[in-house]
Amino acid sequence: MLKRKDAYTVAVVGATGAVGQEIIEILEERNFPAASVRLFASERSEGKRVEFMGKTLKVEVLRPDVFEGIDMALFSAGGVRSREFAPAAVRAGCIVIDNSSVWRMDPEVPLVVPEVNPGDLKKHRGIIANPNCSTIQMVLILKPIHDAARIRRVVVTTFQSVSGTGMRAMEELLQQSVNVLNMKEVSRAVYPHQIAFNVLPHIDAFTETGDTMEETKLVNETRKILGDEALRVTATTVRVPVFRGHSESLNIETEKALSPEECRALLAGSPGVVVFDVPEKNVYPVPLEVAGKDDVYVGRVRRDPSIPNGLNLWVVGDNLRKGAALNAVQIAETLIDGA
Amino acid sequence: MLKRKDAYTVAVVGATGAVGQEIIEILEERNFPAASVRLFASERSEGKRVEFMGKTLKVEVLRPDVFEGIDMALFSAGGVRSREFAPAAVRAGCIVIDNSSVWRMDPEVPLVVPEVNPGDLKKHRGIIANPNCSTIQMVLILKPIHDAARIRRVVVTTFQSVSGTGMRAMEELLQQSVNVLNMKEVSRAVYPHQIAFNVLPHIDAFTETGDTMEETKLVNETRKILGDEALRVTATTVRVPVFRGHSESLNIETEKALSPEECRALLAGSPGVVVFDVPEKNVYPVPLEVAGKDDVYVGRVRRDPSIPNGLNLWVVGDNLRKGAALNAVQIAETLIDGA
Repeated sequence: MLKRKDAYTVAVVGATGAVGQEIIEILEERNFPAASVRLFASERSEGKRVEFMGKTLKVEVLRPDVFEGIDMALFSAGGVRSREFAPAAVRAGCIVIDNSSVWRMDPEVPLVVPEVNPGDLKKHRGIIANPNCSTIQMVLILKPIHDAARIRRVVVTTFQSVSGTGMRAMEELLQQSVNVLNMKEVSRAVYPHQIAFNVLPHIDAFTETGDTMEETKLVNETRKILGDEALRVTATTVRVPVFRGHSESLNIETEKALSPEECRALLAGSPGVVVFDVPEKNVYPVPLEVAGKDDVYVGRVRRDPSIPNGLNLWVVGDNLRKGAALNAVQIAETLIDGA
Repeated sequence: MLKRKDAYTVAVVGATGAVGQEIIEILEERNFPAASVRLFASERSEGKRVEFMGKTLKVEVLRPDVFEGIDMALFSAGGVRSREFAPAAVRAGCIVIDNSSVWRMDPEVPLVVPEVNPGDLKKHRGIIANPNCSTIQMVLILKPIHDAARIRRVVVTTFQSVSGTGMRAMEELLQQSVNVLNMKEVSRAVYPHQIAFNVLPHIDAFTETGDTMEETKLVNETRKILGDEALRVTATTVRVPVFRGHSESLNIETEKALSPEECRALLAGSPGVVVFDVPEKNVYPVPLEVAGKDDVYVGRVRRDPSIPNGLNLWVVGDNLRKGAALNAVQIAETLIDGA
């Protein structure tokens, strides 16, 4: 458990990646009680300098013995590094908040969205998992609806931005777009098909069932976070040529009737959620406008008359902020509040 | 009814639009039995020249009295012109195949996808409606499944390209993309929000229920074409920054069990459909690769375990070809075959 202090020594692992950079910005923005911040990355980034609260920090090489004296480490360096280094960090007395998928379904690891299941933090044994980006924004919407009207089933289709894949994917979308507009040949390195001016129904690897890992994560993590292993969820996850911000088309069936008006009122009172829903004035969330925002935005709340208690909703969140970095920092803040 | 002839006089109304141009190309490609082709558009396009089968055709101004002697007119000039000019064409003895939405739900007007409900053509009284682009590609997939396993419910989310809106929307996506990549300000004229590097959950006007007209069309037209007014369908239609090709995420619940393997076999034997489904080799349809193709492509056919008889599918079609121009020409060909 975290010991109460005035300020904490914090490590950011994967400090030069898309999420790592966002974590550093968010720690600064939120005036996180950091006595010192240490940045780790692979050899490639050793010595890079990063400004933080008026100081210049140098990026250090990640090694198993670096965690001595660090209170909390926010990992965002991919599954392989999390699996390799998180146990060493925990042995050194450091609490790991991990953004990869490797620990999420471990029954001993809490998987937490602070607005949804902060109580699960108490059970941690050193590692706390940060959920998948598309899961975080969905459970923020599902939780109040599940509590009020009991969800029977969710059918979700996602529209995920390339920043979810990382920096290189953002560069690929940029470069491919430039080439298309200049009638030049397009090359591919990150995605198996051109992403510029295209959509790919393929995020993460395919499994034996024909689902992708992303779809499997969305289903399993949602059940774990909502504490309802029987919740029925089916997902189709799609990559779209958007730099930042994930969108989700949700179809929800509830046990108790919930009108669109009641649903909007419920969500308007929920932490971390903004209802943005005046369609006749073209007010609905779009990723370009939600990018950079902390809250998850919901609009187009309407009845689905094809079933007795059906609702359709459109949910947009910044996948690098609430979908990753912000949620990780909020987990750290919740640990501090409880210390 | 159409009189049997060796060749027909055909008019293309809206000849300079995105769909009109495609109709002209397709008539030529398919060696349509045209004795002569006349092209109509608004004053703006009068006198424009278009190459057709080695001849140069001049675009004429659309007027109510132009239809004398024309056997068939393929309209794609928007609802206002269809409402104004189609009745005059019918009075002149011309059969109208109309691509706008104004006649589609008229009980006296057949709404036809030739592979799905060719029999409905017999009931026409001069006007035949061409369905909405997103409807055509969906019913091609639903029809064989409905016949084999009886569909209970469909939840569909679409990813629609800007060419569905027309030429100006294609130019808007192009210009906005260039401006974004050159760090210049982006202006909007066609869509209420920037479409470049963004997605908009908004196609056509909003109705009182909070659904868009596009969503309402997708539900109502599907029921009419499949001849099943009780079919339960709910839709979310979304514009994506793709030039050409609409994609659809379909979740289908059937009465009888249908395995993914059975579903694939069924669709592989269906006219107008190509099964493109080897996900482990990155084989699934994407709009960039389906653009320019006549068939509708389906992939990612997999079980939805959240209900007893659930299937998820990913469907992509060229919205200007099968979704508009090709289907209209196929209706004309079916009329000729039956004459």
